[in-house]
Amino acid sequence: MDNQFASEMLRDNAFKGKTFIVTGGGTGLGKAMVTYFSKLGANTVITSRKLDVLQKTAFEIEQQTGNAVLALACDVRNYDEVEKVIEAAQDKFGRIDGLVNNAAGNFISPTERLSANAFSTIIDIVLKGTVNCTLAAGKSWIDKKQPGTILNIVTTYAFTGSGYVVPSACAKGGVLAMTRSLAAEWGKYNIRTNAIAPGPFPTKGAWERLLPGDLAEKFDFKNRVPLKRVGHNQELANLAAFLLSDFSAYVNGEVITIDGGEWLQGAGQFNGLEAIPNEMWDELEKMTRSAKGS
Amino acid sequence: MDNQFASEMLRDNAFKGKTFIVTGGGTGLGKAMVTYFSKLGANTVITSRKLDVLQKTAFEIEQQTGNAVLALACDVRNYDEVEKVIEAAQDKFGRIDGLVNNAAGNFISPTERLSANAFSTIIDIVLKGTVNCTLAAGKSWIDKKQPGTILNIVTTYAFTGSGYVVPSACAKGGVLAMTRSLAAEWGKYNIRTNAIAPGPFPTKGAWERLLPGDLAEKFDFKNRVPLKRVGHNQELANLAAFLLSDFSAYVNGEVITIDGGEWLQGAGQFNGLEAIPNEMWDELEKMTRSAKGS
Amino acid sequence: MDNQFASEMLRDNAFKGKTFIVTGGGTGLGKAMVTYFSKLGANTVITSRKLDVLQKTAFEIEQQTGNAVLALACDVRNYDEVEKVIEAAQDKFGRIDGLVNNAAGNFISPTERLSANAFSTIIDIVLKGTVNCTLAAGKSWIDKKQPGTILNIVTTYAFTGSGYVVPSACAKGGVLAMTRSLAAEWGKYNIRTNAIAPGPFPTKGAWERLLPGDLAEKFDFKNRVPLKRVGHNQELANLAAFLLSDFSAYVNGEVITIDGGEWLQGAGQFNGLEAIPNEMWDELEKMTRSAKGS
Amino acid sequence: MDNQFASEMLRDNAFKGKTFIVTGGGTGLGKAMVTYFSKLGANTVITSRKLDVLQKTAFEIEQQTGNAVLALACDVRNYDEVEKVIEAAQDKFGRIDGLVNNAAGNFISPTERLSANAFSTIIDIVLKGTVNCTLAAGKSWIDKKQPGTILNIVTTYAFTGSGYVVPSACAKGGVLAMTRSLAAEWGKYNIRTNAIAPGPFPTKGAWERLLPGDLAEKFDFKNRVPLKRVGHNQELANLAAFLLSDFSAYVNGEVITIDGGEWLQGAGQFNGLEAIPNEMWDELEKMTRSAKGS
Repeated sequence: MDNQFASEMLRDNAFKGKTFIVTGGGTGLGKAMVTYFSKLGANTVITSRKLDVLQKTAFEIEQQTGNAVLALACDVRNYDEVEKVIEAAQDKFGRIDGLVNNAAGNFISPTERLSANAFSTIIDIVLKGTVNCTLAAGKSWIDKKQPGTILNIVTTYAFTGSGYVVPSACAKGGVLAMTRSLAAEWGKYNIRTNAIAPGPFPTKGAWERLLPGDLAEKFDFKNRVPLKRVGHNQELANLAAFLLSDFSAYVNGEVITIDGGEWLQGAGQFNGLEAIPNEMWDELEKMTRSAKGS
Repeated sequence: MDNQFASEMLRDNAFKGKTFIVTGGGTGLGKAMVTYFSKLGANTVITSRKLDVLQKTAFEIEQQTGNAVLALACDVRNYDEVEKVIEAAQDKFGRIDGLVNNAAGNFISPTERLSANAFSTIIDIVLKGTVNCTLAAGKSWIDKKQPGTILNIVTTYAFTGSGYVVPSACAKGGVLAMTRSLAAEWGKYNIRTNAIAPGPFPTKGAWERLLPGDLAEKFDFKNRVPLKRVGHNQELANLAAFLLSDFSAYVNGEVITIDGGEWLQGAGQFNGLEAIPNEMWDELEKMTRSAKGS
Repeated sequence: MDNQFASEMLRDNAFKGKTFIVTGGGTGLGKAMVTYFSKLGANTVITSRKLDVLQKTAFEIEQQTGNAVLALACDVRNYDEVEKVIEAAQDKFGRIDGLVNNAAGNFISPTERLSANAFSTIIDIVLKGTVNCTLAAGKSWIDKKQPGTILNIVTTYAFTGSGYVVPSACAKGGVLAMTRSLAAEWGKYNIRTNAIAPGPFPTKGAWERLLPGDLAEKFDFKNRVPLKRVGHNQELANLAAFLLSDFSAYVNGEVITIDGGEWLQGAGQFNGLEAIPNEMWDELEKMTRSAKGS
Repeated sequence: MDNQFASEMLRDNAFKGKTFIVTGGGTGLGKAMVTYFSKLGANTVITSRKLDVLQKTAFEIEQQTGNAVLALACDVRNYDEVEKVIEAAQDKFGRIDGLVNNAAGNFISPTERLSANAFSTIIDIVLKGTVNCTLAAGKSWIDKKQPGTILNIVTTYAFTGSGYVVPSACAKGGVLAMTRSLAAEWGKYNIRTNAIAPGPFPTKGAWERLLPGDLAEKFDFKNRVPLKRVGHNQELANLAAFLLSDFSAYVNGEVITIDGGEWLQGAGQFNGLEAIPNEMWDELEKMTRSAKGS
């Protein structure tokens, strides 16, 4: 049924000779984007902290597309490691055309149950990690007088806020402000900065399988969406490819929401979790704590 | 030099068998969109109050693309005329897949020099006109249980406001709210509603050629844009085609700005510091480093 | 219980010698605002199409506060009538300090059940009416080189949109854009323009008494608000008084939401009406048609 | 001349018996807010890393108002120190009614000249510092089942972004998202969360005195403001007092901009036309009238 949303948008070879780095590119939406960029002819570089997962993904995509995928372990919180990725990508492919800041982490929990340290961890991964990659790539482009494109993956609660995912909201809100700031400041270097705010895509929803009966129904994200379905990964990949491509060369500083209208139907993606009783949060706590991302 | 922005994005025949109505489709950005949709294989219907202009455009595009372009005179302020367009399009092409509300009007003037009547005229054309077309198309789709796509052409001042074009700002602000409202309400009928907010495109700027020397320089829109250029019509056409196509099937209720970052450059409090030369930053560096707060 | 929210904020006599016009000032939130302005020492002018209602309100408030309340019949859609209000207020009180655009109308209905004419009526009352009053007052202030303050009463769905109240959303969205436009353009004349976006206040909710059992519960606006209550009219009056007073002299172009956090908990105030079945809409249709405002 | 903006808004003793904590309360806008809260009868607690500055301010305010001001050294980046402030305030005054997150830091610089470490420093002070204070106060309120009010001081570039202050933009953008998130999540505990986005206030502009002639003119923030002036500290203090007081009890999750319309003037596409003199408008009038579209 989903196949109608799996169509690929851009002309064949639209990314021939281009190189894109995707952080958190080993799994989920990151992997879906990389796969499509690679199909379009791009060289890709994928990073995360888990080299084995990355290498498996790289191999799989290379087999499918015939184009090079470079897997590099990198903790985006560490600027030195990030700089090494930029250098390695440069060395291998000669130039970098775009960066997708996709690595993320999240805790789903009532805020008062979180420690300052939990906030710190998510802010470090999501906000400082995005800053690090952006700064390293930007300095390299400006230094070499090359154009570049930055694409940040945020969420709709970056602008509406949302309870129960507040560390992530803080961090993504920061990335959103960075997107708009650099669009203005670095435009003169021909560096574009944009973002995508995805609504419910299947890879995100793993956690709701943990919920019993009517809660699962209540939090079924499909019900929050006017179009009554979650997104298909290729739909996100199409949009991401558009924003990295020269076809969007006049789009700069923009945050494009792709959520089927979810936030307009009812803002604050996770606010419905108010219905979860305290005891259930106790049980969920251990599980969700381990949901911390790449 | 502009040619690099003239590339066409979507796969050939992406719109084969589709029918799109574009109001105000005889000239400018409207014509650019219709031309591209037609190249992609679509049947198109163009309307405005000037049948002769429309027919010339229709003939020209049909010659170029080989696909049918139906020219229909219509004052969008008149619901009956709008309904007749919907019927005629339906009769000729069997079904309508999308509607682009592009017809517009504007007065550039200090607001206190305008009459209530001037406001009324623009509100009628832009807001009521868009309502009329949307209502007629929507009723037809809902009645026939067909999906549909609505694309409204607004401006960045639909959300930021702007002096000196206040009747248009009022009207476009209304269209923006309608876009978000129907995205939520009509999503269940598989009708998507989106908008594009174009920044400075060449057809808009005709009027500034009227200005003497330094004013012309001052109001050269290029200077308001981080990317230091106005948009190319094909860039808007690419984005419009994306939003009408099924490739954007999960984008709903979204207003995509395509302005090179123009509004952000003006809005961001410190963006004017771009005028500081590099040498002065060298000098300021030590001083500002000490501005770090409590 | 509500009394804790009934406290009056500003210092006594804060509006001594000031004159404010409030359209739609005879009932509901308009009346609450006028009452408070009058208590603070202001002369007030109230308008609507129903002179008898206005006169009763004026008498009642004058008895309570001892300050003059001028009741003037006026259809805000008619610019000549509006101009006469401005002149009469000027004649009676010597000068006008502020204008509150509060007159409104609404249809609650699935959009596809509305005629183009229904849209037109609401746009005329809400958007053109606000334009008319603003233009007449603004021209008068600019002509006399007097400062002035404009306060527009909108809604949260002016920016989020909402289904089932789309004519109102269109019109209020237009008013929002006008607010931001004139703040920029007329600031140089020392005319400030701001807006308030109220969430659920009791006078609004009359209609949900029409709904049977669980629908009434479901649409109880209290449940949509993080603070679990609707607003108290004095809370709106306090905010309005602040925005009209010189205490807010540096607030310009701002839209202040007072909704207890409702839109952040779930945007699109009326989107939940999707749960109403078609047959109930049939029944509601006649009733809601008569809810059209002052 | 500024005296007209120095009026104090709230009724005397409006804050009698209340206790408010203001981080970064020793200087500038922080000090202005604390002074006003103290005048209104509040107990206040001020923190920063510089105990001597704080103590001087505390002494000065106590002399002026006769109400207690507690000065506590605290690096907001350190959660333990923050917790101790909450405990000390609780011990001394029996309860805490509100928290103003005002401590901040900034680097004004082209982004590519900054290190990852510079970003990290600002994010830690502004975003993590705000998180720390909010978390400690919130946990204490929830634990004690007390209501509370959080007020975050952000900037307009928290939502528009801005070049040349990107670390601060990132951090403030994060605070903005936290504001909206907790408004929704913690409303049920009767904890309100709001923010103020100040435009140009005099204490901010110290640095532009460093700029030579025409740059100083160019960056004179007054010129970016429709009202042609910077704000007066009391105007910010009035707004802050309103948002901390029960008079704003139904305002939750709101970010109130107080900038004289600055960001809108920059953002609105045609606002630059202010430079056109009246005589030219006379000439243009006929021409532009004919620009009315299709």
